Amino acid sequence: MERSDYIYGIRPVMEAIEAGKSIDKLYIKRDINGDLVKELLSLAARYNVLIQRVPNERLNRITMKNHQGVIAVISPVRYHDLDNLLAALYEEGVNPMGIVLDGVTDARNFGAIARSAECAGANFIIVPEKGSASVTSDAVRASAGALFHIPVCREKDILTAVKKLHENGYKVVGATEKGAENYTEIDFTTPVAIVMGAEDTGITNDVIKKCDSLAAIPISGKVGSLNVSVAAGVMLYEAVRQRSNRQRSYLK
Amino acid sequence: MERSDYIYGIRPVMEAIEAGKSIDKLYIKRDINGDLVKELLSLAARYNVLIQRVPNERLNRITMKNHQGVIAVISPVRYHDLDNLLAALYEEGVNPMGIVLDGVTDARNFGAIARSAECAGANFIIVPEKGSASVTSDAVRASAGALFHIPVCREKDILTAVKKLHENGYKVVGATEKGAENYTEIDFTTPVAIVMGAEDTGITNDVIKKCDSLAAIPISGKVGSLNVSVAAGVMLYEAVRQRSNRQRSYLK
Repeated sequence: MERSDYIYGIRPVMEAIEAGKSIDKLYIKRDINGDLVKELLSLAARYNVLIQRVPNERLNRITMKNHQGVIAVISPVRYHDLDNLLAALYEEGVNPMGIVLDGVTDARNFGAIARSAECAGANFIIVPEKGSASVTSDAVRASAGALFHIPVCREKDILTAVKKLHENGYKVVGATEKGAENYTEIDFTTPVAIVMGAEDTGITNDVIKKCDSLAAIPISGKVGSLNVSVAAGVMLYEAVRQRSNRQRSYLK
Repeated sequence: MERSDYIYGIRPVMEAIEAGKSIDKLYIKRDINGDLVKELLSLAARYNVLIQRVPNERLNRITMKNHQGVIAVISPVRYHDLDNLLAALYEEGVNPMGIVLDGVTDARNFGAIARSAECAGANFIIVPEKGSASVTSDAVRASAGALFHIPVCREKDILTAVKKLHENGYKVVGATEKGAENYTEIDFTTPVAIVMGAEDTGITNDVIKKCDSLAAIPISGKVGSLNVSVAAGVMLYEAVRQRSNRQRSYLK
């Protein structure tokens, strides 16, 4: 982790939170106690900072400096609120498109997907609080800076995100090989969110059940699956193709 | 570099060449002399082994062991001969498709492209002798093993490769943003080779001039370009889409 990526020590972290710094995660030693820590915890709760209790060794791996059991990992970008964002997109009158990452853990894949999403004109990326790559400096680098331009929303879990998308009239398309249609047969021209699953296990079953369509990219050969960032790019650009075709047929 | 990736010392390298080991590159110290070295050089020439003269420091960076000014980098796969491969594909009566990499240097990108190509049912990948990622263990890992399944041809340079492709009736499509058509407007249903350029500078101008079509993926947003492995995936799967549509319209 780079030096600029974290702040350590109880008071400095409290100041960072109060100053409105965008904190990706707050690591706190499991058995920590004391009045100042209580103050920190209530401050974190007030500012919706994500807290993770960890053993002291985990903190020591981030820094051997005097962290007092508290390290805040700073995010290079500010996460957006999904409800506000969906409302704003509705107000703008755009035909929105987004990407939902259900457990993509590799920073380079996450960055590449953000880059493709920004290039394809997508309006947002949704990641879960746990079990997913965060917006770290590595992810920003892999995104060629796209993560500074495309809004990232971090939801408690993906099921909650899918529920919100449905409430806002989005079609939710899961990219999976399990019993799915060919992705080119799926209509991407309405407001749509494409769910990409984890590198190894794909989309979780609970999320698959909530998808309106399941989209498979046809695979030949022996390897049997695409890299998740390539698969996301292929899906996103099928949506771009269909949307520009529809626009052309409107103009005729 | 992993231990198993290279062989050092004059005699061991000569034995490896004679045993038919697939050698990616033979690094030889610039000012090396002697009868045994002469023998090695003529052996390398006879077996078409690619030789690169380097300063001693370059060799020391690979290994500090007693390399005697000679290190052979072993390739995990055997390169195919392009002429033979194109002839064999013609004999098989398939509608061939291939990828040409004009200066893709990142092993992870190379691997991801190989993986997409294998999944899309492409028949070959062409790389140049110089200025490109080789089939190293890193590339094989990034390809999820696809590099063991899809033939890789290493040509002296990409212009020579394009000439051979033309002689064999291939359409050569360059992926570039410079004065190109939308990639979905290009016909990928005939025998086709898609040229992808370097991560930073794209396809070289000489190669662009020889392309039959130039294909651009439309880009929105501020980042302005896709990762090369994502772009390759998008192009390959546009070809797959068009080819399966054509097949469907035949069946009607």
